[in-house]
Amino acid sequence: MPRPKAFDEEAVLQKAVNLFWCRGYEATSVQDLVDGLGINRASLYDTYGDKRELYIKALEHYRDAEHNGFCQWMDQSRPAIDLLRDLFTGGIRQSVDDPQQKGCFLVNATIELAPHDPAIARIVAANQRTFEERLRQVIERGQREGSINRAHSAADLARFLFTTFTGLKVMSRARPDLSAMQAVMDVAMSTLQPID
Amino acid sequence: MPRPKAFDEEAVLQKAVNLFWCRGYEATSVQDLVDGLGINRASLYDTYGDKRELYIKALEHYRDAEHNGFCQWMDQSRPAIDLLRDLFTGGIRQSVDDPQQKGCFLVNATIELAPHDPAIARIVAANQRTFEERLRQVIERGQREGSINRAHSAADLARFLFTTFTGLKVMSRARPDLSAMQAVMDVAMSTLQPID
Repeated sequence: MPRPKAFDEEAVLQKAVNLFWCRGYEATSVQDLVDGLGINRASLYDTYGDKRELYIKALEHYRDAEHNGFCQWMDQSRPAIDLLRDLFTGGIRQSVDDPQQKGCFLVNATIELAPHDPAIARIVAANQRTFEERLRQVIERGQREGSINRAHSAADLARFLFTTFTGLKVMSRARPDLSAMQAVMDVAMSTLQPID
Repeated sequence: MPRPKAFDEEAVLQKAVNLFWCRGYEATSVQDLVDGLGINRASLYDTYGDKRELYIKALEHYRDAEHNGFCQWMDQSRPAIDLLRDLFTGGIRQSVDDPQQKGCFLVNATIELAPHDPAIARIVAANQRTFEERLRQVIERGQREGSINRAHSAADLARFLFTTFTGLKVMSRARPDLSAMQAVMDVAMSTLQPID
């Protein structure tokens, strides 16, 4: 029978998310992890493998939480255009309210590691495809119900919204300015408006 | 009289740009710099200060080159809407053609360092303001000449285009897909079209 763990793996993983999300992969040392997670070095290696494996587990943990939140948001029966506006507004509010200016962990991972680490590149590219597909479904519903125009395909609009949202998450790392971010959102959302 | 340098500082700085741009700040060691720049450690410290100072000089060198290119591009007398489309097209082409998937050095610096390093945050925020201001001037010209609509202010459109362009540069670190990036550009450009 395996020896029971002396710590809550879920809580420790969430701490690892916060450490890597805030500082990035390279700037977070194994000693930072030992200090921040409150477990000893042997437990860290025993439970999570090396630093890179822990980073990947933390990134997947963050991604799963984002996906769950996204699915709950999608399930609402309000007009698609309102859902999309709320998605932008919520994302902007989250960035502006974060004193650590963490941005999005997946965007940060894309910049820091994707070109050099195929496993990270696969995770962030798959996440992008998943989010674009879910946005596409919401946009198609909006096109059917008439709250979103058909001047562009739902797939292209989904990719566009995901890209602009990514740009806002970069902006929030340096200058999380509420009115500037809302202005960007307003222009982005204008691409969806029904044509009179 | 100061002793003449035994190396071309400009060429060495360009090599430093490429090293930091490709790998990031933390992942580039002083030994990587010594090896990559082809100068010894004493010359590096003597000429550029420490690693962080060299990074800042490299980032400023990159920014200045981008600004110069941007100013030359702006000076053309073609319709503003065509200039903006060429700007996106050129940026996408540059990303897709880069086997190292370097993206934009300023975007990479924003993600890696801006929240923790006030000097870097100032550089990237100032760069953002400068580019937005220059884009605004082009967009205002387009609004005067009738090639760009007035549904949004030139300042908001400029901020929006800069943000979406930033998102494309993130995308290019993980999945530099020409047709996907062009689709995003087409939707972004549709916000500028004159309203019939």
